[in-house]
This record gives sequence, structure tokens and C-alpha cells, in this order.
Amino acid sequence: MPRYALKIEYDGAPFNGWQRQTDFPSVQGVVEAALSKIQPGPHKIACAGRTDKGVHATGQVAHCDMIRDWTPFRLSEAVNYHMKPHPVAIVAAAKVADDWHARFSAQERHYIFRLIARRAPLTFGAGTAWQVKQRLDLDAMRKAAMHLIGTHDFTTFRATHCQSPSPIKTMDEITITQLPCEHGQEIQFFLRARSFLHNQVRSIVGSLEHVGSGTWQPGDMKTALEARARDACGTVCPPHGLYLAHVTYPQPVFAQGELTAS
Amino acid sequence: MPRYALKIEYDGAPFNGWQRQTDFPSVQGVVEAALSKIQPGPHKIACAGRTDKGVHATGQVAHCDMIRDWTPFRLSEAVNYHMKPHPVAIVAAAKVADDWHARFSAQERHYIFRLIARRAPLTFGAGTAWQVKQRLDLDAMRKAAMHLIGTHDFTTFRATHCQSPSPIKTMDEITITQLPCEHGQEIQFFLRARSFLHNQVRSIVGSLEHVGSGTWQPGDMKTALEARARDACGTVCPPHGLYLAHVTYPQPVFAQGELTAS
Repeated sequence: MPRYALKIEYDGAPFNGWQRQTDFPSVQGVVEAALSKIQPGPHKIACAGRTDKGVHATGQVAHCDMIRDWTPFRLSEAVNYHMKPHPVAIVAAAKVADDWHARFSAQERHYIFRLIARRAPLTFGAGTAWQVKQRLDLDAMRKAAMHLIGTHDFTTFRATHCQSPSPIKTMDEITITQLPCEHGQEIQFFLRARSFLHNQVRSIVGSLEHVGSGTWQPGDMKTALEARARDACGTVCPPHGLYLAHVTYPQPVFAQGELTAS
Repeated sequence: MPRYALKIEYDGAPFNGWQRQTDFPSVQGVVEAALSKIQPGPHKIACAGRTDKGVHATGQVAHCDMIRDWTPFRLSEAVNYHMKPHPVAIVAAAKVADDWHARFSAQERHYIFRLIARRAPLTFGAGTAWQVKQRLDLDAMRKAAMHLIGTHDFTTFRATHCQSPSPIKTMDEITITQLPCEHGQEIQFFLRARSFLHNQVRSIVGSLEHVGSGTWQPGDMKTALEARARDACGTVCPPHGLYLAHVTYPQPVFAQGELTAS
């Protein structure tokens, strides 16, 4: 049975998260239902990062096993056709080895959190970024973020119901960028690590926002980290600013399989 | 009665255009209803460019007359409060002279048309850009656009029901830019002129797309223009890629009145 890697983009708003559930719409449910249309029978796909309710992706990766051989392009087109009108799209596909696994073969996850700081309500993309009303100090947030780089006990920044066996993770990068934005500031937080704890990105960005707005000093981030206590965390950001942006593997998977304009 | 200029951003999707109508929702209707909440009685506002059904704006300009004196910031905040949850926002406001007029004082209108060329369906911003499936040739479109710069009879590129007394307009600039876009191409068409005919931007961009996809040669744009016949036009683009982006006046109006993050 040939195995295919799928790069998946989705707007998380209408879904109760990635994971298939009996009573709620899920991204996994939409992809599997489309696969059932082109190859009858149940499908069970695995993904690199199970995103929470309302969280988006521009570069989620999953794999599926098919009975017949498909060119990756035809497979993407067929799945996309059957996923309409859900806001989920296969943006790249590739044939992979039988033992390649979207989750276990992954080396790094990249998350982006989009924040827009402006007074006026958002008219475009209200569901695709977190809005705050006050201007944020990027330098202060960058100083604060430095305290989180490296291997730490991230108990402060993980959900109490997180099921990871250990709170110790290694944060490889936090880059904070201001993008051109006509009215106000658009700020992107880029976080890169082998893996993340439950709610880790939203807990970190919510705490960084406290620093950016002056509620916290940059050094308060170190204090919060060292407290190793969930109640030392700042506000947890809402999910609609968060994107699973990219997953890396030992060998690039989609080099030839990008479903770009032809 | 003090007069205020308002810079207005809106998602055109839910509206039957800018202009107030009895039976359909309009952007003008939403702004005027909000003004009535803060100053009882009817309001009649004028705008720089009456956008069509489904067309967006990031920089529409209108003016209103108020009885009492408002600081521009307070006026914006009050109007924004009463416009919720419509996707319309005042992003800047300024006090102007009594004889200043959003439409008649305007010197130039800038429109942007957003096009995304990719195979996979759009998951984000499906309502904020026109999607085509095939990659477009930017150089060919730029060559074609050159034929439209300057003063011409634009009969080919205006709606048959256009009410402008003359089809002769001066096109000052058409700049075609490719933006970074992970999957496929995002292309922005920037058009600048003193004023535009009805459907002129959508007619021009639809014809340029014919050139970009190879259906037309760049020289066919010249032939179409010189035909001075509506049926020589290419496809008219859908409205949801079009934005009234900016309006210029002899004196900058909003220098101090931007409603940015505080």
C-alpha cells in the first residue's frame, strides 16, 4: 500500500480541533471523509501536530495509505475536490516510504502567532489574528523571550491537562517580527522546537504580550519560568491567532509535490 | 457645524455597495446609522468613491457634519462602537474646513486588485482575493498595461451603464507586484488615476489576466483599447478582489488623525 504525505492548510474556526470526534466537526474528519470518497472504506490518518479547537494551519503534515498508486498531484486534486466547501486544502503531496510517519519522523515544528495591535475593530481577518488595543514594545518582548530559549522545565507554560510525560522541552527559537500594516502594528511570533507542550505557544505569547504592554518587565518572564507553576503564567492567548506553519523532516518531503499554479 | 473627514475600511461582502438603499444593506447606511446614535436625526455623508456591491476598501474617505465639537479620536471610537458587528471601521478621522468635500476635493484615487494564482482552493481570505488556477506571466501583463497609461478613450473598459459624461480618462499608473506567497502566486494590481469609470479597474484587470495566462498577447491590450467597444474587453473580474485603497487631497488630511494602537 503506497503511503502519501499531505501538506494541509486549514482555517480552524469551524472545527473542534484536528482530532476526529464523533459529535463535532474536525479537520481529520474532513480529510478522512474525502479519502473515503476516492477509496471506499475507513481511513485513519496521522498528523505531525494535533492542533486545538480554533487553531489554524498553513503547513500541517499528515500521511495516508492508499490501495492504488496515485500521482501526488491527482491525489491532491481529488481530495481537494471532495473536501469542498470546508476551509481545508491539500497544498502539497508526495509519495513516501512505507515506514515514514508524519508524527514520529518529524524533527521540528514551527508555529506562528499573529497579533494585530490597533484601536479600530478588525474588518478583514478578524478570525485570523488576535487583536489587542495598545501598541506593544517589541524590544521588551524580545528581551523577555530570550529567557525561554534552551532546555527548561516549562510547567508554567503548559495546560494543567497536558498529557506530555515531562514538562521539559527545548525551545530553539522565538523570533518576533513587525510586518507592514497600514493602521496599527501587525506582529508575528515565530516559535521553533522539536515539540511543544499543550497550550505552550499560546501561554508564552500571552505572557510576552504582558511584557509588550508594560504590565510585566522582561525579567518577569524569567521569574515566571522559574516558578514552574501554572498560575505564574500570563494570559493564555485565544486560538484564532495561532498557526501550525511548518514541520521539518530529515529529508525534505514536498520539494516536488507543491500544488502551485500550473 | 464642524465637518469631519473619516477614513473608512470595510469588507464589502455583506453589502450591496457603498450607496445607501432602502431595501439592501450598504456601507453608507451602516455609517449613517451609527452617526444617528451619537447625534439624533438624519445624516447624509458623501464619499470619495462609491464602491460597487462586494467591493472592499482599506482607505475610503467620507465626510460628515456634526453639531457639537468632537475630538477626532472620540468621534472614531463612538462611531466604531455603534457600527459593531458590521465589518466597517473608522481607521482615522480629522477635523476639516467647512468647504472641504470628500469627493470634490479629492485629487487621486488608488485602487488595488488582489489576485491569487494557485491550484488548491483558498482556505484563508477566499472572499478577499480573486483566485485563478494557472500561473500568470507578470512581464507580459506589465507590457500590456503600458498601453493603458496616459489619456485615452476607455469605452472598452467601462460598464455599458456607466454614467460618466465622457469615456476619456487619464491613467497615471498601473503597477503589478508579486508578493511573497507560500503556495502559488499573490499578485497585486495597483491603479492610480484622478478618477475611474464604472467597472474600469475590474475590466482592465480581467483583460490583463488574459495576457498573463497567454490567451492574449500584450499587444492585444492596445487593440482592445483602440476598438473603443465594450465587447472588445476581456472578462470583468469579480468584485471581491478589489479595494479602494487610498484617496489623495491637496493637503494630507489624516496625518494626525490615524487611529493606531495607543
